[in-house]
Amino acid sequence: MIPESKLLKGIRRYVPFDLKESLCLEDDAGLLGKYRQKDLLVTSDVIVEGVDFLRDALPEQIGHKALAVNLSDVAAMAARPLGFMVILGIPSTYRPLWIQRFYRGLLKLARRYEVTCLGGDISRARQLFAAVTVVADTPHGKYVTRRGARPGDCIAVTGQLGGSILKHHLTFEPRLREALFLKTRFDLTSLIDISDGLLRDLGHLLRLSGAGACLELSHIPISEDARRLAGGNERKALEHALMDGEDFELLFTLPEREKTRLTKLWRQRFPRLPLSWIGVVSKQRGRISWRKEGQPVSSPSLKRAGYEHFL
Amino acid sequence: MIPESKLLKGIRRYVPFDLKESLCLEDDAGLLGKYRQKDLLVTSDVIVEGVDFLRDALPEQIGHKALAVNLSDVAAMAARPLGFMVILGIPSTYRPLWIQRFYRGLLKLARRYEVTCLGGDISRARQLFAAVTVVADTPHGKYVTRRGARPGDCIAVTGQLGGSILKHHLTFEPRLREALFLKTRFDLTSLIDISDGLLRDLGHLLRLSGAGACLELSHIPISEDARRLAGGNERKALEHALMDGEDFELLFTLPEREKTRLTKLWRQRFPRLPLSWIGVVSKQRGRISWRKEGQPVSSPSLKRAGYEHFL
Repeated sequence: MIPESKLLKGIRRYVPFDLKESLCLEDDAGLLGKYRQKDLLVTSDVIVEGVDFLRDALPEQIGHKALAVNLSDVAAMAARPLGFMVILGIPSTYRPLWIQRFYRGLLKLARRYEVTCLGGDISRARQLFAAVTVVADTPHGKYVTRRGARPGDCIAVTGQLGGSILKHHLTFEPRLREALFLKTRFDLTSLIDISDGLLRDLGHLLRLSGAGACLELSHIPISEDARRLAGGNERKALEHALMDGEDFELLFTLPEREKTRLTKLWRQRFPRLPLSWIGVVSKQRGRISWRKEGQPVSSPSLKRAGYEHFL
Repeated sequence: MIPESKLLKGIRRYVPFDLKESLCLEDDAGLLGKYRQKDLLVTSDVIVEGVDFLRDALPEQIGHKALAVNLSDVAAMAARPLGFMVILGIPSTYRPLWIQRFYRGLLKLARRYEVTCLGGDISRARQLFAAVTVVADTPHGKYVTRRGARPGDCIAVTGQLGGSILKHHLTFEPRLREALFLKTRFDLTSLIDISDGLLRDLGHLLRLSGAGACLELSHIPISEDARRLAGGNERKALEHALMDGEDFELLFTLPEREKTRLTKLWRQRFPRLPLSWIGVVSKQRGRISWRKEGQPVSSPSLKRAGYEHFL
């Protein structure tokens, strides 16, 4: 899969977006204006056969993913989805039953989060694609961006990371409820969903916030699938957790004083979803330093991959 | 090009849209709710290489068309576009300059109608596609639908029809200003943009309005390109005007009492764009009858093509 950031970096030079008017590209959504005194946001994501899923994915899973990647972008702004449009490009070999099953997966997710399907478009195409655009608002004041992390803030991540290619990228649950919970109850300073991999997305967030980070290796939540991919090699499993894309978990920062209360309330509200405190925001702009059980370490394999300096 | 209506008819059975909540599919846009006391609408359209344009189309033209088909849908509701998202699927053989030129065409049109680009997504794809979603509102009260044509209403069409495949489908101007002018100054009863061909789209409009029509063949505005395609055969040129897709002109109905005033004001406001009164809405549900210079005629070539009864 091609990291979105790489393609976007190429295109940004050519697109005279007015960033004062619109958040676009940097954040996952564009700001349309006010809607009943709330921010109105629009976000778009496309999934393409052979890029975002393979031919053996079930139609229900593809429908689910087409909407879920967008809802994850909405979650990344701590916004609430209102309605969406679906554009489907479909090869002539796909039967009506396929379309029916695609929509079954998509609309099941839509119902769960009470988002209305507003319509869409459909076209013949040689390669299957599903492009969704979601309109969202912010029921609790302003949306959250990637820009506000401050030195001293704690860094947390939901769920378990890595190996999502085995299945999770097709079946993941967008963290909408979790993001709204965080936004309404705590003083969130920044928020992003992990789509390009923990280190890449943390890099985006720190770059936009003008900060760095000190991470605790032993606190990185490694998924079972990451361990399976690594075949028992713990170092490789950690690399999967740090670098694999499409976890679609939340990565966020908040002041240290909120940590204890959040840990407690989180356990009550989301008992089955781990919350991990993986490090602290530092002043060292553009630099991630590492600890292992509190002791400073360098991380040679990551250094080789160019992840120590991410700017 | 595959008529959208045919694909949609296939899919509608499988999609449990709630039509009370949303206009979707039947009209060209979905209704999101109220925005500053106005209707907020969302519309999506995709164009695909080999379906909606060929490889020899200029990148600027493809960018123009990607947005223009959506703005034409907005015009068809007599709404005002606010902002849009662009999703681009792009083969690896396309160079950055291509993307730059695509956006140049797209953003030139966006500026002309003061629509904000809110962002979007980009992905690798084997076949080029551009999917745009526009959010619009209705500055002058309610949007206009295809459902309100009443027996006795006059039927009018803007511009000249047919042969758009020669060039017009890549360069056409969405009739946003014209539609808002019609909506604010006249008692429009129904409105649609011609994308599937005059007779097909008139068919949609009449079916939804539960009415029929009596058309005057000599008043159908035949474009130069339709005549060129027909190679001097006037009957064939007429068929192009009646049946070719992608004219993106406005087709609308209004009470007979408005006709004289509209004719006069239209000439002042849009001196270079023809307005043609092509017939009258009738009570004969599902039936189009024909006149030629006032005399009833049957239209054998159209009858053969199955266009006399359109239901």
